Amino acid sequence: MPRTGIGVDVHAFAPADSGRELWLAGLRWPGERALAGHSDADVAAHAAADALFSAAGIGDLGQHFGTSEPRWEGAAGVALLAEAARRVRAAGFEIGNVAVQVIGNRPKIGPRRDEAVAALSAAAGAPVTLSATTTDGLGLAGRGEGVAAVATALVVPVARDEAGPATGAAR
Amino acid sequence: MPRTGIGVDVHAFAPADSGRELWLAGLRWPGERALAGHSDADVAAHAAADALFSAAGIGDLGQHFGTSEPRWEGAAGVALLAEAARRVRAAGFEIGNVAVQVIGNRPKIGPRRDEAVAALSAAAGAPVTLSATTTDGLGLAGRGEGVAAVATALVVPVARDEAGPATGAAR
Amino acid sequence: MPRTGIGVDVHAFAPADSGRELWLAGLRWPGERALAGHSDADVAAHAAADALFSAAGIGDLGQHFGTSEPRWEGAAGVALLAEAARRVRAAGFEIGNVAVQVIGNRPKIGPRRDEAVAALSAAAGAPVTLSATTTDGLGLAGRGEGVAAVATALVVPVARDEAGPATGAAR
Ligand SMILES: [Zn+2]
Ligand SMILES: [Zn+2]
Ligand SMILES: [Zn+2]
Repeated sequence: MPRTGIGVDVHAFAPADSGRELWLAGLRWPGERALAGHSDADVAAHAAADALFSAAGIGDLGQHFGTSEPRWEGAAGVALLAEAARRVRAAGFEIGNVAVQVIGNRPKIGPRRDEAVAALSAAAGAPVTLSATTTDGLGLAGRGEGVAAVATALVVPVARDEAGPATGAAR
Repeated sequence: MPRTGIGVDVHAFAPADSGRELWLAGLRWPGERALAGHSDADVAAHAAADALFSAAGIGDLGQHFGTSEPRWEGAAGVALLAEAARRVRAAGFEIGNVAVQVIGNRPKIGPRRDEAVAALSAAAGAPVTLSATTTDGLGLAGRGEGVAAVATALVVPVARDEAGPATGAAR
Repeated sequence: MPRTGIGVDVHAFAPADSGRELWLAGLRWPGERALAGHSDADVAAHAAADALFSAAGIGDLGQHFGTSEPRWEGAAGVALLAEAARRVRAAGFEIGNVAVQVIGNRPKIGPRRDEAVAALSAAAGAPVTLSATTTDGLGLAGRGEGVAAVATALVVPVARDEAGPATGAAR
């Protein structure tokens, strides 16, 4: 029986003079307003990683890659997603899929959807879908304060070989 | 293995003199404050359609029915949901179920839940469940700025017959 | 084929002199700011219960435990979750899992995650996972107005024995 998980992530826009660039869904978006954060602020990759942790029941992004884990400071969102997927498999789960929806006015996802899906799916080693919506001028995204993402994931417990690690972890 | 998807939709309330009527979950709600939008602003039907697109990984509502697709301008939310379900099946998926939660102070869903579930399920050709919650006076819904909906969906890839289209698409 | 469901819950913080205590994810949090509500305002337990109702398609928290049902007034969130799980099983479903994410600045879930997961899972009689995130200072949670939770659940229809109730309900 598969298990479902959920992840929400939100980052505020960075000041115009922050020198940061927008990273979203594993891609750099030149000319788009950057998001703030200790990391690259990739809400899509972060929500996807948290949905995987949630489905597997092995904590969350803050626990795995938080401020007490300096080696992950400043890591790219897709690097966190790849490591999250690795840890979920090591915990005995196969990854079915991850679905991410970006909530914000900008950037427009459509023209680069295929590219973003490829980047996220390569990181997760499983199908990651990407969609987007605005919120009709309402909420934090509608007011242009930042960008949010929601994600859901399915994972399946892998039958463990008594002599070794889970099959899923061996990939 | 099934695939999960997620969809969020938000619409602002229309001005009192807009002449619009509230459409929600496939039903008309006489006397209730209307939502604004180019479409009928049915957040429940829109979130359900986006959750299906998300699960199947074939884009989103904006891509399928956006301003560049004039034939869908002003279409009813349930018509979009029915067409979304058709496109998801044509892409090779069977639809397991869709679950929608409406987030807002008004209208009260309970008394018309069975009617709404029947309308949404008929459109999707699959079980659609409908629930509702308020947000304790907080957020865009709590402040009475509009109504939001969140949805999740399960779809299953259909084994394709080499001589023809996917079984799911043949329905 | 399993069915997916979704639940969102939000409660505002109570005034400092309310005399209330914070209950979250089945635990009491001494010294943390309390949430307001007619119930114990346990957003994690409430979102989990609503995700179960949503997956099974048997209404929602308001319908099952609302103001017209005085016997549930003031009930603990985990009591509602346990009763929701019982009603979902009685309706003919087995519960696969529930995944809950708490959205707020406080309290820090990590140090008490195992304890909370045990409390929620015991109530549901099924695996409940718990994660947490902040929202970068944005939204109702970021502004410290309250705490939100989102949850997703998987349930499976149980084959009914013609001579008796559903196997799932007999547990
Ligand atoms: Zn993040
Ligand atoms: Zn809409
Ligand atoms: Zn509640």
